Amino acid sequence: MSLTHLNARGEAHMVDIADKPESRREALASGYILMRPETLALVSEGGLPKGDVLATARIAGIQAAKRTHELIPLCHALALSKVEIDFHLNDEKSCIEVFARCRLNGRTGVEMEALTAVSVACLTLYDMCKAVDKEMQIGNIQLETKQGGKSGDYRRAA
Amino acid sequence: MSLTHLNARGEAHMVDIADKPESRREALASGYILMRPETLALVSEGGLPKGDVLATARIAGIQAAKRTHELIPLCHALALSKVEIDFHLNDEKSCIEVFARCRLNGRTGVEMEALTAVSVACLTLYDMCKAVDKEMQIGNIQLETKQGGKSGDYRRAA
Amino acid sequence: MSLTHLNARGEAHMVDIADKPESRREALASGYILMRPETLALVSEGGLPKGDVLATARIAGIQAAKRTHELIPLCHALALSKVEIDFHLNDEKSCIEVFARCRLNGRTGVEMEALTAVSVACLTLYDMCKAVDKEMQIGNIQLETKQGGKSGDYRRAA
Amino acid sequence: MSLTHLNARGEAHMVDIADKPESRREALASGYILMRPETLALVSEGGLPKGDVLATARIAGIQAAKRTHELIPLCHALALSKVEIDFHLNDEKSCIEVFARCRLNGRTGVEMEALTAVSVACLTLYDMCKAVDKEMQIGNIQLETKQGGKSGDYRRAA
Amino acid sequence: MSLTHLNARGEAHMVDIADKPESRREALASGYILMRPETLALVSEGGLPKGDVLATARIAGIQAAKRTHELIPLCHALALSKVEIDFHLNDEKSCIEVFARCRLNGRTGVEMEALTAVSVACLTLYDMCKAVDKEMQIGNIQLETKQGGKSGDYRRAA
Amino acid sequence: MSLTHLNARGEAHMVDIADKPESRREALASGYILMRPETLALVSEGGLPKGDVLATARIAGIQAAKRTHELIPLCHALALSKVEIDFHLNDEKSCIEVFARCRLNGRTGVEMEALTAVSVACLTLYDMCKAVDKEMQIGNIQLETKQGGKSGDYRRAA
Repeated sequence: MSLTHLNARGEAHMVDIADKPESRREALASGYILMRPETLALVSEGGLPKGDVLATARIAGIQAAKRTHELIPLCHALALSKVEIDFHLNDEKSCIEVFARCRLNGRTGVEMEALTAVSVACLTLYDMCKAVDKEMQIGNIQLETKQGGKSGDYRRAA
Repeated sequence: MSLTHLNARGEAHMVDIADKPESRREALASGYILMRPETLALVSEGGLPKGDVLATARIAGIQAAKRTHELIPLCHALALSKVEIDFHLNDEKSCIEVFARCRLNGRTGVEMEALTAVSVACLTLYDMCKAVDKEMQIGNIQLETKQGGKSGDYRRAA
Repeated sequence: MSLTHLNARGEAHMVDIADKPESRREALASGYILMRPETLALVSEGGLPKGDVLATARIAGIQAAKRTHELIPLCHALALSKVEIDFHLNDEKSCIEVFARCRLNGRTGVEMEALTAVSVACLTLYDMCKAVDKEMQIGNIQLETKQGGKSGDYRRAA
Repeated sequence: MSLTHLNARGEAHMVDIADKPESRREALASGYILMRPETLALVSEGGLPKGDVLATARIAGIQAAKRTHELIPLCHALALSKVEIDFHLNDEKSCIEVFARCRLNGRTGVEMEALTAVSVACLTLYDMCKAVDKEMQIGNIQLETKQGGKSGDYRRAA
Repeated sequence: MSLTHLNARGEAHMVDIADKPESRREALASGYILMRPETLALVSEGGLPKGDVLATARIAGIQAAKRTHELIPLCHALALSKVEIDFHLNDEKSCIEVFARCRLNGRTGVEMEALTAVSVACLTLYDMCKAVDKEMQIGNIQLETKQGGKSGDYRRAA
Repeated sequence: MSLTHLNARGEAHMVDIADKPESRREALASGYILMRPETLALVSEGGLPKGDVLATARIAGIQAAKRTHELIPLCHALALSKVEIDFHLNDEKSCIEVFARCRLNGRTGVEMEALTAVSVACLTLYDMCKAVDKEMQIGNIQLETKQGGKSGDYRRAA
């Protein structure tokens, strides 16, 4: 077994996808940002988002998904057909959960796009809250489900 | 207490930093990517990195630090004087630990730049290993230390 | 009736276009920049453009069309097959009229690309003339015609 | 009188600002997007914004201000200290008025940054409403006030 | 005979490729950077690359290929299916030879992408060696072979 | 002697420039693109440029100078105070010579910015002429002069 992004000499390259058929691809990624309860309270009120905080993070995540190939050196440029970001304010764990779903008709999967969207949405939430909370932590960024492509569907074990 | 990036109506804006004095700023952020031991073995051999994997992630992290203000909507464009990324292959925890240190002579802190570098370096490692491991998880992205600026120095409690 | 770019909770998302068929799309947009007659005279001479002013604005407009999805958060990345910018020096109204035509074989329309090209071409003209005229005004940026796609052809009423 | 951005042969160049002193600069630009009353009603309700429409346009405008030098070929890269976007829903004129204020400690003015922010905010509003209204028109993009720099302060005549 | 990128009035435009059929395209470009033997020795040891120098240049070249349409104003945005960069340390000529191969299923050729990758890889090598050698020279950037498209295959005469 | 951009373990990093004093920096770089005489004749007529060819390459070069830090991974983001591109149509050698001059008040040199501007201007000329000439060659990209900074002035030996 070896890494597909390295050739026999260990050199990085962009894998050729020209011979893969076009198909419908979808990926759902998730992650969260842990914060103090007082910080979370500044973002929500009675379970509802306050002000532009979530809207700003949502836009940042959507835009990052479209720029994934600029950020991740060996990713192909993709014409995503859909990007959707959801937030769940979790008072119990004192965190904001972030979900990103990407879709494409194309020759390669969209996991990296979904994971990048989650990461940048979390970083944007961090930026807006960092003046009041330096202990925040971004974590559990992972792939939840994946459809389409030769390797078949994937669903993370609960 | 309220969020600095929102005005009284809850609208997002880029905070004015024109009146803050220039000073030397530094931030160190960390995070890791958990993977299966077999995946980690593809990246290292006898504790040494194999092929271009870490070099690729390092370059991706450095470049992302410079583009932080394009990714995080309310961040200011900064002229970083230094970016440095370090990796530690942790066999015990079966993860790659990532550290990013950023420095600036300027009017605002560089935490977001260091955190963005860590995030994108982790995403790049994920991308290169995803064909062999779909269970990977990026986590514990956090600020370790911060120097300079009015709010003083910060060191994360161990 | 509701806005397609918002979900039922009012949250922004990138609309899914995966199920739309590929077709030939075209859009023509227009706009103008009003300036003082003396300013316009610096740009033209006997009805002919002087120096690189129009060429610079043309290149800026073409490049902006290609980056529309980076500027407009909910726009899809498109592989435009053609971009063309035309200028008309209108001495009577003391303005420069700008036209942009974009074309695509794809799943969504190219109005935003044409409108973005017009806007950035106008801003570039503004930039080159602003040292001599601070009263300039960019206006009447609008869609002229649109072909292709399910919603059918459109032609602006005269 | 001649254009500062062209040399004696009419060739475009980026004007040297190295010898200009640093000073506090500020610019306020405005513009609007005209739409049908029914379209405006989809964006507001009882004078309040509905959903993420204005927040999305605000973020797009802020981010565009930071990228002005990438869009306008002869603009210098600037480290803006502040960007602020305001909207006014004008039922009487059936339009959304857009205002952008930029600030900088630097060697050149920030008019282009403010004008670019207004333009891209208007284009983003257009994008979100275009499925229900093809007659919209972006107009009156202009400089309102300007402070700082050798050429002195400017205020547009009412 | 005339230039395809100018219209009859000599104005630049992006050529329409909507009517060209999709086909497999490939291009190989080459170039080199000449340096002093002592400089070359810092990059290699016994014919093997030392440290991250070549890996950094390789990543820079791959990323530049994906951004060709942002750099070259009249190039179309393309979804490259593959990018591969190779280096050959030539002790005899005291240079590093650079090769870039790009591939696409699409409507236009990928020569510019391959040439851009070579150029930026050379510039990156220059950057890393410039502190010790100011006499370096980048040269012989040229197309080696080209397959696919109406104009047929091309192979540079030896 | 060793490479400044690698640490003791051979890993790439962005060199810290925070302790270097600000000073006036300037660099002049040059290069050329060789083409067939018939190709050169399409670009010029009686020694004068025809159409938008040179203007397009000039704008591309200026814009590339501003994006050098995005292209060259270890370059710092710089706020160039001036960029100027000149062309010389050389009938004797059947080439177009390209010169780029960059200036900065800052902590590091601007050679890479000038060399990047020359490279991208040459690539843009190549793009516009490639339909009629596949034998073109870009060459002799080199630093001509450099002023400012601790290492002192440099002038290439003739």
